[in-house]
Amino acid sequence: MPTLLLDRKSVKTLMTMADVISVVEEAFRMCGEGKGKMPAKVYLSVERGDFRAMPAALPGCAGMKWVNVHPGNPSLGLPSVMAVLIYSDPETGYPLAIMDATEITAYRTGAAAAIASKYLARRSPHTMGVIGAGYQAYTQILAHAELFNPISINAFDISKAAVGRLGRSLPQLSVKSCSVQEAAASDIVCTLTPSRSPVVKREWIMPGTHINAVGADAPGKQELEPSILKEAIVVVDDLTQASHSGEINVPIEKGLYSTSEVYGTLVEVIVGKKKGRTDSRAITVFDSTGIAVEDIAVAKLLFEKAQQAGGYPSIDLVG
Amino acid sequence: MPTLLLDRKSVKTLMTMADVISVVEEAFRMCGEGKGKMPAKVYLSVERGDFRAMPAALPGCAGMKWVNVHPGNPSLGLPSVMAVLIYSDPETGYPLAIMDATEITAYRTGAAAAIASKYLARRSPHTMGVIGAGYQAYTQILAHAELFNPISINAFDISKAAVGRLGRSLPQLSVKSCSVQEAAASDIVCTLTPSRSPVVKREWIMPGTHINAVGADAPGKQELEPSILKEAIVVVDDLTQASHSGEINVPIEKGLYSTSEVYGTLVEVIVGKKKGRTDSRAITVFDSTGIAVEDIAVAKLLFEKAQQAGGYPSIDLVG
Repeated sequence: MPTLLLDRKSVKTLMTMADVISVVEEAFRMCGEGKGKMPAKVYLSVERGDFRAMPAALPGCAGMKWVNVHPGNPSLGLPSVMAVLIYSDPETGYPLAIMDATEITAYRTGAAAAIASKYLARRSPHTMGVIGAGYQAYTQILAHAELFNPISINAFDISKAAVGRLGRSLPQLSVKSCSVQEAAASDIVCTLTPSRSPVVKREWIMPGTHINAVGADAPGKQELEPSILKEAIVVVDDLTQASHSGEINVPIEKGLYSTSEVYGTLVEVIVGKKKGRTDSRAITVFDSTGIAVEDIAVAKLLFEKAQQAGGYPSIDLVG
Repeated sequence: MPTLLLDRKSVKTLMTMADVISVVEEAFRMCGEGKGKMPAKVYLSVERGDFRAMPAALPGCAGMKWVNVHPGNPSLGLPSVMAVLIYSDPETGYPLAIMDATEITAYRTGAAAAIASKYLARRSPHTMGVIGAGYQAYTQILAHAELFNPISINAFDISKAAVGRLGRSLPQLSVKSCSVQEAAASDIVCTLTPSRSPVVKREWIMPGTHINAVGADAPGKQELEPSILKEAIVVVDDLTQASHSGEINVPIEKGLYSTSEVYGTLVEVIVGKKKGRTDSRAITVFDSTGIAVEDIAVAKLLFEKAQQAGGYPSIDLVG
């Protein structure tokens, strides 16, 4: 029996953001119904970075993402984050496919934030601000454009060239280069930087704003002034991960914020255990750290699409 | 940059038991010197079995083994246990290779037990008993024959045919089919069954015997009468894993044995923190559950050999 091999280019060809949003939301819903299994991420620290093993199972699929974070990589011409996913048959354990998960990670993170915006932002948002114009800005915009159309984009980055590249990568959308204040004054704000101190001030945020805080993914990282969290309705994807390495980690560490102030999880909001937005003037924050069921749901989609399409390489790996 | 692909046949071709013993013992030694990193295994349970993610790093190498245990597989013509290993560059996180780890698991388990025998068995053992004549018996014998030569093998299995197959797979060695009592009366005894109740009685074990208890790898499994453990010097590979799923797990669960009775770890014995055998009449037991540094050490060996040999397939997976 062969193990399918899907490289980064194949993954990108097989994946559409609309599909990713659909399967990720369905995965969240299944988790809410107790049908998802997801032990805590394991960290393996090495001198120059770390690795994370992220196993998960959903009905009909199981697997594990192995992802590294090596901040010094760009100076060597490599991405900081690379990921490989082993997609397994839950019935037998057979490794059905091995695929690049670098693109999966980028797409599912965009999708999860857009889903959060769907439940937490005001109806009919007109503007989306992105702070940090790297590749994650591309997938965030792609995902939000699927759910909110038309929407105009206010993009800020400390590198003007990055904003230019972002605009050129999305020719179908209006991407306006602006100041960080202007980006923060949008209906939906996505923070996508590797910052270790707040880049968004409370005074810039308008009543009714929804913020997707995506950049903080390790202890010590933060992007928002803690006063924003204190005032906002804060929704997390996973409370343990968020407390350890999400946007709330630094304020918790400094004693400025407590996990008891977190409103709930995105899954709880999606399945209706917790209400989404009820006050049009409230500030809402989704603290996204990324959870393994998102990856497995997308891997299932890709495996099925690749099987249907045929022609992808495979190897008799464990046979 | 390509990711090397090593299928099961390639792995088997590249691997010799002598090399595996050498790198596994070196890995143990490095762990004893604080140079190994190995977070706890993570379990993902599914309806028909489970998966384990086993990450580890040693100087110059890192990676993760993803291994399943699906007891019903043989009825479907598949092995119960299959494993895939992602071998990563610790400096950058790049996935250098993806390899079958089913053979690695079998070989390193044999190697670890033979290393335990080297430190714990009496000098110059003449006979080795194997109880359970499946594939693990093959690698156990292969490993012991590297370190103890000449040695004659007493093999027992509930299936006579299995013993016959085992003998034919090792034509260079003397493999005698015998009763379980005779196998247990050998100088070194390896228990390699999936049993859930004791198959080896205390009264069959001679003074001075060393036992490698390998079969128990999940809660509820056991192969030895608990009185053997009570009397023996018990050495484990990993105390947490052994208590959870090794030979000692059932006696602990039943209140017949306590972790405080464990003498130490194999690593402690190898680096001399604990003495090995001091009394020629003592019974010693190595409770083997399998640890991730063993796999990573073998993966490094295979990667380097494959690179040196050249000609193995590769894929530009994350590029």
